[in-house]
Amino acid sequence: MLTHFDLMRELAKKNDQRIVLLVLDGLGGLPQAPGGPTELEAARTPRMDRLAAEGALGQTIPVGRGITPGSGPAHLGLFGYDPLEYIVGRGVLEAVGVGVHVAPGDIAARGNFCTLDAQGRITDRRAGRIASEQAAPLVERLARLQIPGATVEARHVKEHRFALVARGPGLDSDLEDTDPQATGVPPLPVRARRKEAGTTADLFNRWIAAATAELAKEPAANGLTLRGFSTDPRLPSMSSVFGLRPACVAVYPMYRGVSRLVGMDVLDVDGERPEDEFAAVRAAWDSHDFFFIHIKKTDSRGEDGDFEAKVKAIEAVDGALSSLTDLKPSVLAITGDHSTPARLRSHSWHPVPFLLWAPATVRPDSARTFGESACAAGGLGTFPAKDVLPQLLAHAERLEKFGA
Amino acid sequence: MLTHFDLMRELAKKNDQRIVLLVLDGLGGLPQAPGGPTELEAARTPRMDRLAAEGALGQTIPVGRGITPGSGPAHLGLFGYDPLEYIVGRGVLEAVGVGVHVAPGDIAARGNFCTLDAQGRITDRRAGRIASEQAAPLVERLARLQIPGATVEARHVKEHRFALVARGPGLDSDLEDTDPQATGVPPLPVRARRKEAGTTADLFNRWIAAATAELAKEPAANGLTLRGFSTDPRLPSMSSVFGLRPACVAVYPMYRGVSRLVGMDVLDVDGERPEDEFAAVRAAWDSHDFFFIHIKKTDSRGEDGDFEAKVKAIEAVDGALSSLTDLKPSVLAITGDHSTPARLRSHSWHPVPFLLWAPATVRPDSARTFGESACAAGGLGTFPAKDVLPQLLAHAERLEKFGA
Repeated sequence: MLTHFDLMRELAKKNDQRIVLLVLDGLGGLPQAPGGPTELEAARTPRMDRLAAEGALGQTIPVGRGITPGSGPAHLGLFGYDPLEYIVGRGVLEAVGVGVHVAPGDIAARGNFCTLDAQGRITDRRAGRIASEQAAPLVERLARLQIPGATVEARHVKEHRFALVARGPGLDSDLEDTDPQATGVPPLPVRARRKEAGTTADLFNRWIAAATAELAKEPAANGLTLRGFSTDPRLPSMSSVFGLRPACVAVYPMYRGVSRLVGMDVLDVDGERPEDEFAAVRAAWDSHDFFFIHIKKTDSRGEDGDFEAKVKAIEAVDGALSSLTDLKPSVLAITGDHSTPARLRSHSWHPVPFLLWAPATVRPDSARTFGESACAAGGLGTFPAKDVLPQLLAHAERLEKFGA
Repeated sequence: MLTHFDLMRELAKKNDQRIVLLVLDGLGGLPQAPGGPTELEAARTPRMDRLAAEGALGQTIPVGRGITPGSGPAHLGLFGYDPLEYIVGRGVLEAVGVGVHVAPGDIAARGNFCTLDAQGRITDRRAGRIASEQAAPLVERLARLQIPGATVEARHVKEHRFALVARGPGLDSDLEDTDPQATGVPPLPVRARRKEAGTTADLFNRWIAAATAELAKEPAANGLTLRGFSTDPRLPSMSSVFGLRPACVAVYPMYRGVSRLVGMDVLDVDGERPEDEFAAVRAAWDSHDFFFIHIKKTDSRGEDGDFEAKVKAIEAVDGALSSLTDLKPSVLAITGDHSTPARLRSHSWHPVPFLLWAPATVRPDSARTFGESACAAGGLGTFPAKDVLPQLLAHAERLEKFGA
């Protein structure tokens, strides 16, 4: 049986056609009221509508039907990696999410502040979701702690969350979480799941002892737990599998980090507006042939529950779109990594609108506008997000024929 | 690689939302004449049409494209079990189909009466499809036969068919069928496929000898064959995989039996009409959160080749539907386990109409009626039946996010 990546390695060929994958994070939505339009349908998007009319629509299933994806698996899918096969550990995602580099052999964990009673038993597993302004200085103090055998880096994420990365020789990530998932009991020690990880467990336990001593007089967060011990997943690079010279244009550390895990060059962006990101694409147009562009605001406004602001974030992308199409990519796809309906104020499992524009090769369908209903009836049908990339390659004539 | 069930176990969470899966057996149909409507499209179903307008449609593929499923695999798919991975033996299906319990270690087989000539050679493999009234007393006599080493239970099914279950220590189901699939030759002996099953083969051969002696003077059915030796497949329960408290409301033993295999509580039903089944749901509303309701008549009338009667069976469900929607489930799905077009008088491989109604979370599509054409153009697309359950859980907000 030929694996999907075997097939891609065999068929991928290089040419000078450029592919742009424009991801509006959390693009998919829901009507705010019964019978109404979704965010994308409510948005005035004349440029996207023109691309929809010239191109073809469909909808993607990010991980599986009914599965609400986190940002990590959702993006891996769009990059062509089956998110159920290529698992990136929680600790690694948390670390790369705040821009902490995780090299092969480094061990990353997600840290949570908690509160402990006088007997060391957990009273609140999230330290009352301590404010970021209060938590960040605590993480800075923890970042200064050092223990023999490894270098440890700590970085604040948000509220009670921080990322921790240990670097040193012979470390092993096969470790159990210290969060007992309950209050009234003390945090668990780090336990090795197999003998080889014993030294690493000891190391983290010593760090935890030092950290707990450091926090002892902090009533708001006098304890911590560690979860999701993991290391660089050593994903095959997009260049080795798909024959691309890929570049990432993203403002948020999380998306830059995930892109780095698949071997993309992460470009500098001067500014945070869509036009700033498109300018970064223009600057690298000659040196790369695949551009992943990440727009964060659509997701953020969805998570805020702000329908109108999400509509405006979509319109802002449309307003700047000419500077992207002026580059004349062979293939331009516009989609989301998942849905974030303002009505649900969170990521969701709903299929994601997908627009494929490729003047030389696309088979147009009858769609005239870009929206959920049009995508559900689109000519590309409903398909797994991991099938996006092969279709982009095909429309850029970068895949050989399979079989004689 | 994370298996689908690993993922479900990891993500499933409990809440107080209720899910109803209403299965009209054999729902999918075909036009009686070219250009005409299917059974479902011909039926007057104002209540289902309203749900279709408020919800989303799609169509399911029960086992695989082109595959006509039996009732067992078709229902396992709807319950979230890949029917090509979780195989229930024919003997077990036959036994649970008539309400005979098959515990782990019990060996079930499907029995067929046949006729033998003076030399013991089969003259009719189905004993002329002997009438049930004639066959049932014969099975009762066989049920009284006992042999050392096991307890054997026999139960009549229909016409020439009966179910046989052996219970005792150390039994093994790895046995070959005794039906030679031909006339003019004697039934085969039970043969062990591996050494460990030798004792069980002997045991069944002794039972067959006793049974053939008992039938010797019955010209209508003086022999028998056994097929599909199998045992309880030890399916993981729906509660362990999906975190549900599932209940089955079905009139026919087969569907009650399959539901039991996946750990559903099988509810008592007082009557056989849709409203009687819906009343059983109401009675268990507080003690369960997932309700599988099975309507048999749609399939029976399809197998009769009676288009109009199948239309009326669908309309009868629609007529009673308010008593179900009045319970205010969070999620209501209406579908079939497979298609049974009256024109074909049998199960078929055609995709199955699927309606998903979930006022708080569904993304509506443009469908206004419930029917095959509307479902083929529905917003949910066409998907494997085993993906029904994850989508029901998602719309009841019973699945955590996957990955950070």
